Amino acid sequence: MNPTTSRQASTALHTDRYELTMVDAAIQHGTADTECMFEVFARRLPGARRYGIVAGTGRLLDLIRNFRFDDAELSWLRENEVVTQRTLDWLADYRFSGSIWGYREGEAYFPNSPLLVVESSFAEGVLLETLALSVLNYDSAVANAATRMVTAARGRPLAEMGSRRAHEQSAVAAARAAYIAGFDATSNLEAGRTWGIPTMGTAAHAFTLLHDSEEEAFRAQVAAVGSNTTLLVDTYDVADGVRAAVAAAGPELGAVRLDSGDLPTLVVEVRELLDSLGATKTKITVTNDLDEHAIAALSAVPVDSYGVGTSVVTGSGSPAAGMVYKLVARRGDDGGWIPVAKKSPEKISIGGRKYPVRRLNSAQIAVEELIYVGDGPEDSDSGSALERPLFVQLVNAGVIDEQFTGPEGTRRAREHRAKILSELPADASRLGRGDPTLPTTFSS
Amino acid sequence: MNPTTSRQASTALHTDRYELTMVDAAIQHGTADTECMFEVFARRLPGARRYGIVAGTGRLLDLIRNFRFDDAELSWLRENEVVTQRTLDWLADYRFSGSIWGYREGEAYFPNSPLLVVESSFAEGVLLETLALSVLNYDSAVANAATRMVTAARGRPLAEMGSRRAHEQSAVAAARAAYIAGFDATSNLEAGRTWGIPTMGTAAHAFTLLHDSEEEAFRAQVAAVGSNTTLLVDTYDVADGVRAAVAAAGPELGAVRLDSGDLPTLVVEVRELLDSLGATKTKITVTNDLDEHAIAALSAVPVDSYGVGTSVVTGSGSPAAGMVYKLVARRGDDGGWIPVAKKSPEKISIGGRKYPVRRLNSAQIAVEELIYVGDGPEDSDSGSALERPLFVQLVNAGVIDEQFTGPEGTRRAREHRAKILSELPADASRLGRGDPTLPTTFSS
Repeated sequence: MNPTTSRQASTALHTDRYELTMVDAAIQHGTADTECMFEVFARRLPGARRYGIVAGTGRLLDLIRNFRFDDAELSWLRENEVVTQRTLDWLADYRFSGSIWGYREGEAYFPNSPLLVVESSFAEGVLLETLALSVLNYDSAVANAATRMVTAARGRPLAEMGSRRAHEQSAVAAARAAYIAGFDATSNLEAGRTWGIPTMGTAAHAFTLLHDSEEEAFRAQVAAVGSNTTLLVDTYDVADGVRAAVAAAGPELGAVRLDSGDLPTLVVEVRELLDSLGATKTKITVTNDLDEHAIAALSAVPVDSYGVGTSVVTGSGSPAAGMVYKLVARRGDDGGWIPVAKKSPEKISIGGRKYPVRRLNSAQIAVEELIYVGDGPEDSDSGSALERPLFVQLVNAGVIDEQFTGPEGTRRAREHRAKILSELPADASRLGRGDPTLPTTFSS
Repeated sequence: MNPTTSRQASTALHTDRYELTMVDAAIQHGTADTECMFEVFARRLPGARRYGIVAGTGRLLDLIRNFRFDDAELSWLRENEVVTQRTLDWLADYRFSGSIWGYREGEAYFPNSPLLVVESSFAEGVLLETLALSVLNYDSAVANAATRMVTAARGRPLAEMGSRRAHEQSAVAAARAAYIAGFDATSNLEAGRTWGIPTMGTAAHAFTLLHDSEEEAFRAQVAAVGSNTTLLVDTYDVADGVRAAVAAAGPELGAVRLDSGDLPTLVVEVRELLDSLGATKTKITVTNDLDEHAIAALSAVPVDSYGVGTSVVTGSGSPAAGMVYKLVARRGDDGGWIPVAKKSPEKISIGGRKYPVRRLNSAQIAVEELIYVGDGPEDSDSGSALERPLFVQLVNAGVIDEQFTGPEGTRRAREHRAKILSELPADASRLGRGDPTLPTTFSS
């Protein structure tokens, strides 16, 4: 256990009350220790997209590390009569001691992909439901949007700058998820500090308005940070702004930023003006309410980079990924797993242990998300050249695999997404609504 | 200053990098101390709604209290060369020492309502932009959705239970914002602890699936928490579930919960079945992907309470309120305020100091959002019986008014919304898209 653990705040009350009520009832009824298997999956991809990208796993592992009931949490639960004393005593000793497998962070996923499998006692596992879903549903919603923007940008760099349009802590998670999905930088300083993501940003309209003229503001900025900066040129008239920017910084000006107007037209005009002023290497960055469709529409004009705000941090129309956390099996009296599943017509889930692989054709292009249903990896014939196993073990008997956590885990997740994206069929990059690019098949 | 302050984490890096770059440039250029006025407003109401509800103010004040640059923040900024040493020295002493006025939390708002006015030096005020917008944009997005759900529920109680569909910290803020907008409870325990919001919840499908039969699960729950509980009856067949619930708890059963199916039909059937079993006082609560429209559609059937998840925590289609933070005036060399405003065609803002009132008719119904533009309250003729002033002072020369913070401030905000809602015209409660229910008028 990491020695700094005790300094982190407890995450245990980021939990729905009913999780604790269920633990309380199960302890009293004698079923709390029943060995169980819980699974996180999404019944469909939000927004009729072609694939999703798993994000949040590394964050979740850190939060599970700090999921414990200290005196403050226990006192509050006691005073509010949430659970009985017997359950309070059990909670006081709580540390997750089970095992967790899951899709690697940055992996593509499809409807019913078993994204996370938690194997533990009923009580230990059920307590993690709310926290696991909060993290995976938000972070994956952002990654699902971001990966489409990265595709639409066709290699041009993207910066996430939506902090102001998300809860202040969501903003940090959003920067991380967008980075995993292929963004290059963020405006959010806390995301830089916590996750090692490159940060960017130079000035807002307020800086121009503070000064008597646009050129005075530009000269102040260039004096402070050098001519290789980005000047925001649309506070008044854009053409005047561009001229003032080049006058202040010289043709070595790093970039101009456009945050309003009809961008496909404006970008072409600004490029011509910059070139005519000798600022042929000055770049153009655009930032006005972009989403994946607006980015795609700019692919034919000379934009050098994009800044994306609201749409990426709110999942571009799908602000939660729709994942659920379900009990799929429990250990019977004979020691075997008993698959269990809810029967409500529109919410059917498939009971039992899963072992997912991605089937590839001989050209190494994915053709199917194949989920073996059975007693576990040891029973399946997976792992061949044409079946890439999708599970990694994240937690082993309570011990977190640190390769998936922190800035290094974040960097690895970003690399993983870049690597596996080339394995998806070409229609995965389509922005229109449609069916998932791979079928999900269960094999028992 | 509160003695517990030093124990709270610094919030200062929940900030876009460009805020610090602007401070750096302004310090070097000698303009950092210019007295400035910044304003938060929304150019339009999201989703073509009729009014908005301000939420987040109390949370923001707590975050401003902890907005400081400790050694950890300063070291990171230095190592990453975000600002110069001179600016680091200035940041080390940073405490917000200006004044803030704003709409009371829980107040209704309209396009261009000046929701928050920050009066301080340029450098002190610009640093708060990202944090202020993160908080107000998210919390108000939730309150904007929640207030419509409360109206649609026509007096029936509502519980917020969307924690699993929002970032784990957003979930706490969402519970608070929904409560301010008239919800009665939340599933989120941390929201109970931090903000004093009543918490609720009993069991999920996992608890039923843990046991050999539905009735065994129900008996275990009733044994643990008593018959005045809520039993979830839709894991298998609903009618069987209702019978098993009454068998386990007796006719004193508190409530049954329905989480799937065609609710308008199902609720009627379940009510009849409960009555036929003698459980005439057992209530029915429904929780299946509800939003304001689904709630309205259930108004004619005997639902007793609603649980709302995804749609409330994601703003029911509008996950960010679209507020901006703009420099609107700066002090000139002669000591007078100089109004400033950006000129980009679609993003015009109105410069200068504002003093907003809500004009009422003789029946005390609001008819206009009237914004006096001028040097401040002392110049206006507001405050008459037919002009309700909308500003309260939140921070006075760096000192936070504690009546707006903590659980008490949250409770007051909820009361304020309930009180002022009756002042809005009848068409404010319409769920369809349309124009704001009040026009916003500027008077100089």
